[in-house]
Amino acid sequence: MAALSFNLQYQDRGSKARAGVISTDHGEIQTPIFMPVGTAGSVKAVTQEQLRSDVKAQVILGNTYHLYLRPGLEVLERAGGLQQFTGWDRPILTDSGGYQVFSLAGTRKISEEGVTFQSHIDGSRHLFSPEYVMDIQRIIGGDIIMAFDECPPGGCEMDYAKKSLELTNRWLDRCFERFNSTPDRYGYTQNLFPIVQGGTYKDLRKQSCEYVASKNARGNAIGGLSVGEPEPVMYEICDWCCDHLPSNKPRYLMGVGTPWNILECISMGIDMFDCVMPTRNGRNAMLFTTNGIINIDNKKWEFDYSPIDEGLNNPYSNNYSKAYLRHLLKSKEYLGLTIASIQNLALYLWLVEEARKHIIAGDYFSWKTAMTERLKQRL
Amino acid sequence: MAALSFNLQYQDRGSKARAGVISTDHGEIQTPIFMPVGTAGSVKAVTQEQLRSDVKAQVILGNTYHLYLRPGLEVLERAGGLQQFTGWDRPILTDSGGYQVFSLAGTRKISEEGVTFQSHIDGSRHLFSPEYVMDIQRIIGGDIIMAFDECPPGGCEMDYAKKSLELTNRWLDRCFERFNSTPDRYGYTQNLFPIVQGGTYKDLRKQSCEYVASKNARGNAIGGLSVGEPEPVMYEICDWCCDHLPSNKPRYLMGVGTPWNILECISMGIDMFDCVMPTRNGRNAMLFTTNGIINIDNKKWEFDYSPIDEGLNNPYSNNYSKAYLRHLLKSKEYLGLTIASIQNLALYLWLVEEARKHIIAGDYFSWKTAMTERLKQRL
Repeated sequence: MAALSFNLQYQDRGSKARAGVISTDHGEIQTPIFMPVGTAGSVKAVTQEQLRSDVKAQVILGNTYHLYLRPGLEVLERAGGLQQFTGWDRPILTDSGGYQVFSLAGTRKISEEGVTFQSHIDGSRHLFSPEYVMDIQRIIGGDIIMAFDECPPGGCEMDYAKKSLELTNRWLDRCFERFNSTPDRYGYTQNLFPIVQGGTYKDLRKQSCEYVASKNARGNAIGGLSVGEPEPVMYEICDWCCDHLPSNKPRYLMGVGTPWNILECISMGIDMFDCVMPTRNGRNAMLFTTNGIINIDNKKWEFDYSPIDEGLNNPYSNNYSKAYLRHLLKSKEYLGLTIASIQNLALYLWLVEEARKHIIAGDYFSWKTAMTERLKQRL
Repeated sequence: MAALSFNLQYQDRGSKARAGVISTDHGEIQTPIFMPVGTAGSVKAVTQEQLRSDVKAQVILGNTYHLYLRPGLEVLERAGGLQQFTGWDRPILTDSGGYQVFSLAGTRKISEEGVTFQSHIDGSRHLFSPEYVMDIQRIIGGDIIMAFDECPPGGCEMDYAKKSLELTNRWLDRCFERFNSTPDRYGYTQNLFPIVQGGTYKDLRKQSCEYVASKNARGNAIGGLSVGEPEPVMYEICDWCCDHLPSNKPRYLMGVGTPWNILECISMGIDMFDCVMPTRNGRNAMLFTTNGIINIDNKKWEFDYSPIDEGLNNPYSNNYSKAYLRHLLKSKEYLGLTIASIQNLALYLWLVEEARKHIIAGDYFSWKTAMTERLKQRL
């Protein structure tokens, strides 16, 4: 059993895009990669079999906040961790719960110690501290676990962002201290990734990148983007952070985004992504396809018996028709949620696989430009 | 393309149970058989791939009332029928919509002509007549289509049941007249099954069986059971009807029931069953397993990491644990609905397959007694 390692294999000629392999004790991850979000131990409406065979997911994400509340730590610990519990045997990354807890505006309170919040399920009160969140993630058992940070609201003032970053940095020290003094739980190696914050302020971001880099972790993340700021600002900060983070470690951009956001940020040197967009939008009838965007609720698809997307290689995209999927979603049939989620996730995984091929071929930049135009089309 | 045929292969030595093969233009059905209910063109929370590979369904049911309202006849007709529309390429049986329409108490009105009712979706008014229901089922395109009958309420008076049966018989004539004067739509043969009614009154049931038999259809159904009467009465009437229906045609008992109901009625000579119980109860945390009944909501399963049911041969029953399924259902994760539905459907299909083996072996009766005890156990 060995710590996570990153083998940077290829660099694109015309951009900062790169292709590599992350090795974990649960197997390898080809980068760039997209990670489906498995909130409470399940990628919504998709089975583990479908994730493997149809979506072709290599790593999935679990949400600490949700898993901590339900099924709870004892169930996960006695199961032998989240992989054993869910039957997903490939790598898992867990977030720190910070983002979810800060979203509970009104019911949470931040202090130096940590964050007090109320469960959305039963109203019970809990405290997440940096130390406790390390313990929790140790028990959940992700291969990659995330630092507990404060996520300042999008568009916050410089002064707030600065104070918030200072707190995040003090918490980061506490995270590493606890992480380094506690053992792996289940016989495989866990790896802690620190998170860059600093709002939309370049000097704060730079300072944060340097602090994060000083931890010499196995990988580094960029948080606090795609939280309401304009898209050009998001790109600018992402690019800036990539330039100030070590190039020999994987870079993970948290919670981003659309397919073209992903293509753009790959060109800046991001290696890992996660987002609820493919599953959430799919459940709301918005499909991402290899030819563009489909609002399957639209009456124009009522009699369209063509496959949902022949550009992908899975039976859901190839064998079910647009008219049938439209009917299922309008009738609130669960199968509609499943087909739409698989379509969108498979599109995201296909996209990063294609991106990798073009990085290796050295023509990523021109391919990205054409592909972005294609993906953004409204069909 | 040929009309449905029934090859009665084996008769049990110790009961009236029988094993056969129904041949349709969409393939063969080994009997006795259970048909999962695919209400609006989807067996709820289960994909067509899972129905084929994991549930091992041979034929599924579609509901005329639901399909007529949504997606509607034009969508189904232009698709080339329900098989083309859904991608389910094995046989389909459609009900007549009668049962659903009569369930809309308060918003429906029965006359000699037919039944006027209001859509549960948009309140629009519609008339189902025997003729129109034949036309509708022609368009939906089931291999087996059902007569439009009145379903009297469970426990109704003799007088009501008699008048209702007379109406059902007049409607039956009109069904056959329309059916026989209209062509198959999509290049394969459709087959109309008449339905025995008569409440819990043996003389009415006998009269109905004789009337139904006189139509010389390819198969015959028994309706109006399991609608509130005591279980022993249901068994008595079912047995009575089997004795008065032709033995060389498949006998279909509509809407029944628990696994042990099915075993009991097989012993009387029933060949085909359908019921929403496996899927509906599954979604409500009640599991049928090869070892008995599980209420997976129960706290006793919280730390039970054993497979849901090792007695079945599919990855959902074998690879997911009771603790995980409990967590999914408590967290209202869609995956929980899928796993529970597959477990219960696979149990039903396994059960009729085992029944068939024991009919062939000639020891059905003793096997049924032991199996009933096992299945009814509360774990």
